[in-house]
Amino acid sequence: MSAAEQLRHEQADFVAAVAGELTGFLSAKQSVMAAISPDIEPIMGSISNLVTGGKRLRALMCYWGWRGAGGAAEAPEVVTAGTALELFQAAALIHDDIIDRSDTRRGGPSVHRSFSQLHDAQGWALDSERFGQAAGILAGDLCLSFSEEAFTDIGERAAARSTARLIFNLMRAEVMAGQYLDILEEVAGPVRDRAGAVHRAQSIIRFKSAKYSTEHPLALGGALAGASTELLRGYSAFALPLGEAFQLRDDVLGVFGDPQTTGKPAGDDLREGKRTVLVALALEQATAAESAFIDARLGHQDLTDPEIDQIRTIIAESGALQATEVLIEQFGATAYEALAALDLDELPKTALRRLAEVTVSRAA
Amino acid sequence: MSAAEQLRHEQADFVAAVAGELTGFLSAKQSVMAAISPDIEPIMGSISNLVTGGKRLRALMCYWGWRGAGGAAEAPEVVTAGTALELFQAAALIHDDIIDRSDTRRGGPSVHRSFSQLHDAQGWALDSERFGQAAGILAGDLCLSFSEEAFTDIGERAAARSTARLIFNLMRAEVMAGQYLDILEEVAGPVRDRAGAVHRAQSIIRFKSAKYSTEHPLALGGALAGASTELLRGYSAFALPLGEAFQLRDDVLGVFGDPQTTGKPAGDDLREGKRTVLVALALEQATAAESAFIDARLGHQDLTDPEIDQIRTIIAESGALQATEVLIEQFGATAYEALAALDLDELPKTALRRLAEVTVSRAA
Repeated sequence: MSAAEQLRHEQADFVAAVAGELTGFLSAKQSVMAAISPDIEPIMGSISNLVTGGKRLRALMCYWGWRGAGGAAEAPEVVTAGTALELFQAAALIHDDIIDRSDTRRGGPSVHRSFSQLHDAQGWALDSERFGQAAGILAGDLCLSFSEEAFTDIGERAAARSTARLIFNLMRAEVMAGQYLDILEEVAGPVRDRAGAVHRAQSIIRFKSAKYSTEHPLALGGALAGASTELLRGYSAFALPLGEAFQLRDDVLGVFGDPQTTGKPAGDDLREGKRTVLVALALEQATAAESAFIDARLGHQDLTDPEIDQIRTIIAESGALQATEVLIEQFGATAYEALAALDLDELPKTALRRLAEVTVSRAA
Repeated sequence: MSAAEQLRHEQADFVAAVAGELTGFLSAKQSVMAAISPDIEPIMGSISNLVTGGKRLRALMCYWGWRGAGGAAEAPEVVTAGTALELFQAAALIHDDIIDRSDTRRGGPSVHRSFSQLHDAQGWALDSERFGQAAGILAGDLCLSFSEEAFTDIGERAAARSTARLIFNLMRAEVMAGQYLDILEEVAGPVRDRAGAVHRAQSIIRFKSAKYSTEHPLALGGALAGASTELLRGYSAFALPLGEAFQLRDDVLGVFGDPQTTGKPAGDDLREGKRTVLVALALEQATAAESAFIDARLGHQDLTDPEIDQIRTIIAESGALQATEVLIEQFGATAYEALAALDLDELPKTALRRLAEVTVSRAA
């Protein structure tokens, strides 16, 4: 077997093991829930449905962090850690979609939307929208609790005051804080100083995404395998800029991505009012009239398709799109350099490079 | 010192210790958050504010469960468990108030409402209501994570697969499931069979409230102190009916309570559309026209004060109020009997009796 094949096999085995553990975990929970009432099935179904998809980026980061620090292939601890990360990500997505008023997720209805649809289909009383939101809040809460249960199931290596547990705790707190900064900027951005907007957007990226999606999962895997402080620092030097590139790519896709590929409506980020680095750069570099137009329309649910096109054109012609692509390139280069400097075996090093490539150049 | 004084002192010491630990815990978190951005302060402030108040019912149940099982007074483990329960309760309240559209909590604005007010006061862009909800969802998520962190801080006695941890996990899952059943009944109740309504309302009470507020906290304290299965069964026989009485009392207060005392607007439960045992009994016992009126108006935000009075009158005159008071009495009697049968030292037994009295006969 070639090195490339070995990598593919090992990664596929891990992803399959996480998928299997997720199924087993949720089916055990489903039994607990069925004992309470069969009415809870749609909540469990919505969680199962959500964890079935996705790129498993966080679980994979965790896995290769573990392998790079000398952890054995297919060890149960890292599979359980991957399961916990995927459950946490599902919980975050459920609540995110409520917060961002996103009706779709991976081409299907988002969780809160699926409950509004259930309400409509059943002809229930009162407001279907409110019901959907309420059910989505509870589904997310349940999934958040599940993620922590799974994390504790890791056992000794994730016990109270372990490095792995501290990373998991910090990861949760930082992503929630980052999300708050994100929604705060949506509403406060227009009245805050424009000069600081790019800086604020970069800080939001760091906390709500880069640390959460790449830095912490990689460190978590490493810590579970007993990585040295030096290795964890090296992981961070690689994963943080990678995560920033990842989110900047996400921001570009959120405005310019192909709905067929992203599974989200075109220009979704603009209707949601996200004040990304891309948008902040456009506000800085566009004409006063163009910036005023963006400020006036960004985040309005009734944004029309021609308006979306107009904002896209401003972002592209102001040079903001180009500048963001340059940033992605730079963060990517910094990440690759840091990776090259890491003292790792060939297999995890190659795996992390592949993961980085997919992350930065993806189209969905 | 008399036995009564000793009880009062010990209980006051415990409550003070929990309050102190909550303050210390949140101030450590505040440092983590301040390092991210000073903008997160309102989120931390809203959590601190919420955990300052309250009756500490769950923490006290846990404490006396611990003491009854032979745990030492003022042991750090039970203080930390109480802290975790209070943080969990705060998280639940934050999300509950969004779900129930409650603008007030303990006489002040609820968390999501305080963020809408912040938005208005700052003159921020877009929709203040949506911002308040989004911030409330995130504040609740953060607080939920904090509760679990605190729980893990208990250490060895709450490690993976410990009885205490299993109870904590079940408690979280059941209360979230119960809350879903609650909001489901609000919308599905009017089209479901009326004959089953009282039964459904009783099941909701059991999961969203009785198990959560009294049964699990008491068992948790017991389990942490190494209680036998027999003692845990005895705790359950006492705490489950007590919790049912507690919630029935809550339902009565939600319709007939004095806003000055409850800190919530009069008839709040009726605007929220709660299909409590009280309401289910009224629907069963009132005239067809009266029931149709309740079904048509319950859960509508624009319910007028005269309409609230009218529904109150129907509930009272149909005999539903009286029937609920009888149920409270019966559940209370069952609880006291089970308590009497418990093989406990005098101090915890007296403490639990006091707690039960306060719980069942409270006015707020």
